[in-house]
Amino acid sequence: MDALSLDTVLLSEDRKSLKILDQTLLPGRVKVLELGELKDIWEAIKSLRVRGAPAIGVCAAYALAIGAAQIAGSDSGNDVKEAVGAAFFGIDGKSDCEGLDTESFLIKLKERSDYLASARPTAVNLSWALNRLMRLAEQNRDREPSEIVELLYKEADKVREEDIAISRSIGEIGYKLLKPGCGILTHCNAGTLATAKYGTATAPMYIAAEHGMTDFRVYCDETRPLLQGARLTAFEMQGAGFDTSLICDNMASYMMKQGKIDIIFVGCDRVARNGDAANKIGTSGVAVLAKYYGIPFYVCAPSSTIDMSIADGSKIPIEERAAEEVTEMWYRERMAPEGVKVCNPAFDVTDHSLITGIITEKGLCKAPFDKAFEVLGIV
Amino acid sequence: MDALSLDTVLLSEDRKSLKILDQTLLPGRVKVLELGELKDIWEAIKSLRVRGAPAIGVCAAYALAIGAAQIAGSDSGNDVKEAVGAAFFGIDGKSDCEGLDTESFLIKLKERSDYLASARPTAVNLSWALNRLMRLAEQNRDREPSEIVELLYKEADKVREEDIAISRSIGEIGYKLLKPGCGILTHCNAGTLATAKYGTATAPMYIAAEHGMTDFRVYCDETRPLLQGARLTAFEMQGAGFDTSLICDNMASYMMKQGKIDIIFVGCDRVARNGDAANKIGTSGVAVLAKYYGIPFYVCAPSSTIDMSIADGSKIPIEERAAEEVTEMWYRERMAPEGVKVCNPAFDVTDHSLITGIITEKGLCKAPFDKAFEVLGIV
Repeated sequence: MDALSLDTVLLSEDRKSLKILDQTLLPGRVKVLELGELKDIWEAIKSLRVRGAPAIGVCAAYALAIGAAQIAGSDSGNDVKEAVGAAFFGIDGKSDCEGLDTESFLIKLKERSDYLASARPTAVNLSWALNRLMRLAEQNRDREPSEIVELLYKEADKVREEDIAISRSIGEIGYKLLKPGCGILTHCNAGTLATAKYGTATAPMYIAAEHGMTDFRVYCDETRPLLQGARLTAFEMQGAGFDTSLICDNMASYMMKQGKIDIIFVGCDRVARNGDAANKIGTSGVAVLAKYYGIPFYVCAPSSTIDMSIADGSKIPIEERAAEEVTEMWYRERMAPEGVKVCNPAFDVTDHSLITGIITEKGLCKAPFDKAFEVLGIV
Repeated sequence: MDALSLDTVLLSEDRKSLKILDQTLLPGRVKVLELGELKDIWEAIKSLRVRGAPAIGVCAAYALAIGAAQIAGSDSGNDVKEAVGAAFFGIDGKSDCEGLDTESFLIKLKERSDYLASARPTAVNLSWALNRLMRLAEQNRDREPSEIVELLYKEADKVREEDIAISRSIGEIGYKLLKPGCGILTHCNAGTLATAKYGTATAPMYIAAEHGMTDFRVYCDETRPLLQGARLTAFEMQGAGFDTSLICDNMASYMMKQGKIDIIFVGCDRVARNGDAANKIGTSGVAVLAKYYGIPFYVCAPSSTIDMSIADGSKIPIEERAAEEVTEMWYRERMAPEGVKVCNPAFDVTDHSLITGIITEKGLCKAPFDKAFEVLGIV
């Protein structure tokens, strides 16, 4: 199963629904959901059926375009009453009709945008994509709703295409860092499943394959507690035909000492001005090991994740998640004593001094990172 | 549930059976098996119901004493035919009778010793304890079987008492390294459950409590893939009333950076002459992190684990275990793609340069370790 051929999020041909690969069922089952109702798309985002910041952004953009079409009545066959959880924003459930004036259209569109944004309130790309489309709609308030709907579909396409272009660029830069026969370690899933295509940390491998280079080995940290590395990255890399090995997180030191790892690529959630990078818990540990064993450690970061308003990583809040993720996902019974305290930080911050380079779509940044970001025009 | 009050292995009052805490059921159920048949004790060792090198040694010593008593017929109520898997060594199953001559007794004893040793062929302490008792029996071949049986029971008691004394001594030395309010990290289970009492890496905490000091925090790495830290160490530490937190292995870097960890104690399986220490997979990674964050890292090692015949850790073979331990212990379904390669080394070697000190029952060793071992008379 080639993950790259699986579209994480795709608009259907009739533009009435979204095809979403249900990632909660991976790697056991590959199931594509076709969702035309906004409440179902909302649920898919909420329940992590679609996940990964860029993929969520693309999903939200298309969802709002579909919602706009439903409001404008250009899709008269669709029951708008059902499209939005009526109770959510006190939406009255009355059928929208053709000939709606643009101001009323924009009000209803904003309701749907707010509704979609509520699926994962802290996901930056979700509100970013929705705001981008809302802004476009409002800038075109002198047009008919049906014309705005067309603009929104085109903008959603653009969000998707831009994301693919960003991943491609990161992949091209990362690919040039690979040597024949090298071993690559990655942590968590910053793969094609988290984006529109190619991923960020996996883009160098996919682009290498497009260039005909496949003689490398990929090692996937399983990434406790939620196992995104085992479930998603190993699935992607194996499916792409790469020589893929799964390891427990605590085996990385051993593999590095054995000389199996030549380069490390990880994704990131947010990068501070000085280059400190927040990513999935465990990333900073991999970086410390890489430094000790003398292995280059690269952060793959769309320039949009670089937050120049934050001086360093200490300003990045770290989400603490439920203890049950650590203690209760096991087969026969609970695998830790009842009542034991559990620490479950979802992310950690990797100090910039541990990072060999930050690969953005605009170019490769080396320390001092703040200067490098400025040179690339990242503000 | 105070793990220290739970005897891992205890001889029953009538000396006819062994009480073994079934560790495969922890932490959910505390069940003590009372086993009088050698084949059942063999199964308990084989199936890891009793585990940890010192605990296995104690178990085997008592088991051989019980077997000796059965042969000598001093336990005439026991059916010896059933006591040993008859097919295993071609034992004929004929009932042993009183008045057996010592040479025949020793032959039958050796059969039972070989049988017990086969439960875990690579467990050094298993054959070490059995050989110790067999040697004693052979040195006393001028005595009656019934007298030898008594010597073997006493020797088994000695194996147990020596193990407790070793753990106590390690604990006293480690305890002095603790500061009020400190945070202690440990990896895997080198706890009381792995020994006759106190454990090795946990001995400093237990001894501290005996001295009335309990204002420390214990962090337990869950220790993938088999979760000995979550299942056993967290159970022990919480049961002892200590402030105990469970973390995933990949969270250690985050906890260290947060300043939560002040000292690290780990056990070991074998130490080379230069101080390189083999222990559960992931230990070397913890040591690298400790070095980076400037946290002292101590290996708790009975002097019997120091192998002066091995120059360095590269000579210690690392067992590679089944992939299924990594991929198939999850709740709903397999959590990694079918057919993906898995690396599952059971141990790793921590370089001596990363070790602050090696705590033996004879004293605390600092680098250069080979000289320190010699000073303590370890040969």
